[in-house]
Amino acid sequence: MTTTEDRTHVGAGIDAVTAVARRLLPEAGVITDRTRLRTYECDGLAHYRVTPALVVIPEDDAQVAAIVRACAEHGVPYVARGSGTGLSGGALPHAEGVLVVTSRMRAIREVRREDQRAVVEPGVINLDVTKAATPQGYYYAPDPSSQQICSIGGNVAENSGGAHCLKYGFTTNHVTGADFITPDGDMVALGGAAPDAPGYDLLGAVVGSEGTLGIVTATTVRLVRLPEEVRTILVGFESTDQAGAATSAIISAGIVPAAIEMMDALAIEAAEAAVHCNYPDGAGAVLVIELDGARVEVEEEYAEVARLCEDNGSFEQRLATDAVDRALIWKGRKSAFAAVGRISPDYIVQDGVIPRTALPEVLRAIAELSSSSGVRVANVFHAGDGNLHPLVLFDDAVEGAGEAAEQVSGAILDLCIEHGGSITGEHGVGMDKAKYMPRMYTDEDLDTMQLVRCAFDPGNISNPGKIFPTPRLCGEVPGRHKAAHPLQQAGLAEVF
Amino acid sequence: MTTTEDRTHVGAGIDAVTAVARRLLPEAGVITDRTRLRTYECDGLAHYRVTPALVVIPEDDAQVAAIVRACAEHGVPYVARGSGTGLSGGALPHAEGVLVVTSRMRAIREVRREDQRAVVEPGVINLDVTKAATPQGYYYAPDPSSQQICSIGGNVAENSGGAHCLKYGFTTNHVTGADFITPDGDMVALGGAAPDAPGYDLLGAVVGSEGTLGIVTATTVRLVRLPEEVRTILVGFESTDQAGAATSAIISAGIVPAAIEMMDALAIEAAEAAVHCNYPDGAGAVLVIELDGARVEVEEEYAEVARLCEDNGSFEQRLATDAVDRALIWKGRKSAFAAVGRISPDYIVQDGVIPRTALPEVLRAIAELSSSSGVRVANVFHAGDGNLHPLVLFDDAVEGAGEAAEQVSGAILDLCIEHGGSITGEHGVGMDKAKYMPRMYTDEDLDTMQLVRCAFDPGNISNPGKIFPTPRLCGEVPGRHKAAHPLQQAGLAEVF
Repeated sequence: MTTTEDRTHVGAGIDAVTAVARRLLPEAGVITDRTRLRTYECDGLAHYRVTPALVVIPEDDAQVAAIVRACAEHGVPYVARGSGTGLSGGALPHAEGVLVVTSRMRAIREVRREDQRAVVEPGVINLDVTKAATPQGYYYAPDPSSQQICSIGGNVAENSGGAHCLKYGFTTNHVTGADFITPDGDMVALGGAAPDAPGYDLLGAVVGSEGTLGIVTATTVRLVRLPEEVRTILVGFESTDQAGAATSAIISAGIVPAAIEMMDALAIEAAEAAVHCNYPDGAGAVLVIELDGARVEVEEEYAEVARLCEDNGSFEQRLATDAVDRALIWKGRKSAFAAVGRISPDYIVQDGVIPRTALPEVLRAIAELSSSSGVRVANVFHAGDGNLHPLVLFDDAVEGAGEAAEQVSGAILDLCIEHGGSITGEHGVGMDKAKYMPRMYTDEDLDTMQLVRCAFDPGNISNPGKIFPTPRLCGEVPGRHKAAHPLQQAGLAEVF
Repeated sequence: MTTTEDRTHVGAGIDAVTAVARRLLPEAGVITDRTRLRTYECDGLAHYRVTPALVVIPEDDAQVAAIVRACAEHGVPYVARGSGTGLSGGALPHAEGVLVVTSRMRAIREVRREDQRAVVEPGVINLDVTKAATPQGYYYAPDPSSQQICSIGGNVAENSGGAHCLKYGFTTNHVTGADFITPDGDMVALGGAAPDAPGYDLLGAVVGSEGTLGIVTATTVRLVRLPEEVRTILVGFESTDQAGAATSAIISAGIVPAAIEMMDALAIEAAEAAVHCNYPDGAGAVLVIELDGARVEVEEEYAEVARLCEDNGSFEQRLATDAVDRALIWKGRKSAFAAVGRISPDYIVQDGVIPRTALPEVLRAIAELSSSSGVRVANVFHAGDGNLHPLVLFDDAVEGAGEAAEQVSGAILDLCIEHGGSITGEHGVGMDKAKYMPRMYTDEDLDTMQLVRCAFDPGNISNPGKIFPTPRLCGEVPGRHKAAHPLQQAGLAEVF
């Protein structure tokens, strides 16, 4: 009975939001048909699937604000979705909620050469920002492997990284302002064009908050000047140990390449089979190293990088001779995730971070995990900043194989935490890793985060169920002063 | 009667906190003597003076946590203070509260060359971080003019900048982790060694929150490698217009110097009188430009900078020949604030930001303000990132002069806002600029910030009265969903 009543209630809320959407949006922007709703049931992490109750495709900020306001009024949850390429289930719909799809908000509103900024809408494709800025001599630096299809809105929600974040930083380092719709439908301005703004840096808190604080409808991003010179080098090693040592040697020498990417033998095999990238035969590991900057500087750094790789045992080095050659080297790396499909029917893309200095040790531990469990693991990663992407291979047709893979995948995160790293480098927590949060954070840490969420979203309607392991109503989060401190309870408050 | 009762109540709270402090801290760490309390009555902005009810000087995190916990229990406000060099009254004490002075927490706990990090306590002097890192080939980049005396805790609270922030970014770009005492005395870990952490970026929100969210007791900072080559050039121009045009030309050419500082004729006169820095005779403006990086790159950039300055009318260029010469050039710039005392009995240090492209226009408008009001204004500033520091000169012995100076100073902030800038670049809002916040932010913006403050500090005890123009009790901040939206009240919700 309760279930039915609840459904009716939810149904009424959804009906009300649908009515608002129908009044404001073009017909094609309101989807209620079950079959069409199902096409939105997952993002890039197809492991979780939920059909939303309603999909809306707004065309401007005012429409987004009106939809959110209607959701707030009727207590209906909503989830924002860009291109749906996320790998942590951050854009997984809510069964009783609205999915706000930003694919029709694709205007690049401004490209301002004089202060190196662009203002873009959330549905704009990452690579399109660079395309718009290139004629003026600039580009947008954060470059997820999915940059040809992923959207800036999703990048902002997940604080996305990419190969070139080693030198240039993550999305959060490139976002200087945003128009932001709070969970009650107010539009507020965060940050701005000036290098610093007074008051709290809420822009920083919003970037990477995975849609749980509200929806960003316009983002001001920093543009970076195209470098005078780029050199891309493919370096073959016998082992990941050698490649890891070379990486450490380069960074310790004070050189910060635009990118240092590593792939192990299994990843190379997959990429070779898929895109024929012509990586060195018999390599136990390759590094893709890219240097950029002033020509004179790149030349000097190149000589040193070449020497350091040789000192650490490289058996082959290939400098890209032209743009086509460079693109081929990168193609091997950027298609590695998908390429793994050539050598395994199923796989899990893991995402974790370790201090760069722990690379050799953690890679050895992953190899041991793999050999003791019989689960194959291919390693593709941003070596320069210690951001691992182990690909855990399995065949779902084999009984128990999925579980075994999940177990190895989780154990890799444990390794990351043990070595002082993190459970995600750039893919986010989303649905998938909420359960791992208590391994990184104490209850006090998580409560502090939840208090911030409640400040923005006391009704828990903005992408509920993501990030936090135990979703609670805001009244349940121990507020400051509301609960006695554990030490006070134990009568120890006065001695500490 | 009410007043007396309130005082008694406050007195009891202070007595309880004093008792906790006496039990935990060494005798010298608890100050209750009126005369000694008065020595803490202001920070670098001596315009505001308040004697605190109690000063404590804790020696470790646990003591800070215990003091804060006692404050929370008894509803006593507290203010953290580092070296007290702040220029916005951010560390102004509370008359009925505790001043937590961090000057005995001065340990540099770690300098880790291998991952370019240092872990420092809040009382550590800014320049001492660099001194500790230099033997290993590194330094700490953010460099306020007060770096010889200001503390890292204060830098974190105010998100301090400095001359070299043009290339290297503000404090927030160099803090990767913190131990943080919440206003109920819990210690939580923010950020960490990994480049990104899951969950909300509360570290970013805490940096620059001016002590209103809690107290940072240990900070992990990024170290930057000492550059191979540094070149410092002093360039004389006839006018600030020319110097501004040269600045724009350099940045537009894609060169990002470590610093581009500008001083106008009046500032040069003051610096010359105070420190004999040997700046070019008869200059209407000078630029101090510093280039750093790989030798080959610096050489190439130097040639281009020299040419661009000449193209824009420089009449003299002097390249520092050695470290002593470089130090002298910088001495003129870094002592400019204090030096102004040589040419004026009193002055206001203003701090505002404008887009760099608006420099010539705003400088001309400031000159007009000055000539129409008869109030002299010396301009010293970080030209590269448009961060102005107009010094508004007056003689307090002349009736009405202080008010006239205040008026000009405020009008300069209006100019900054009109040109899309900000009311503070690096000195913070503190006590001094809270009244200007509504000129930059809407009520919704400020309420969103206050909701975050209330999440951390519902009792309003952590540095109360700073940043926000109209301090409110947390119950008074319109919570999301609690108040009807203005458009709903007007019956317009459905059309927007």
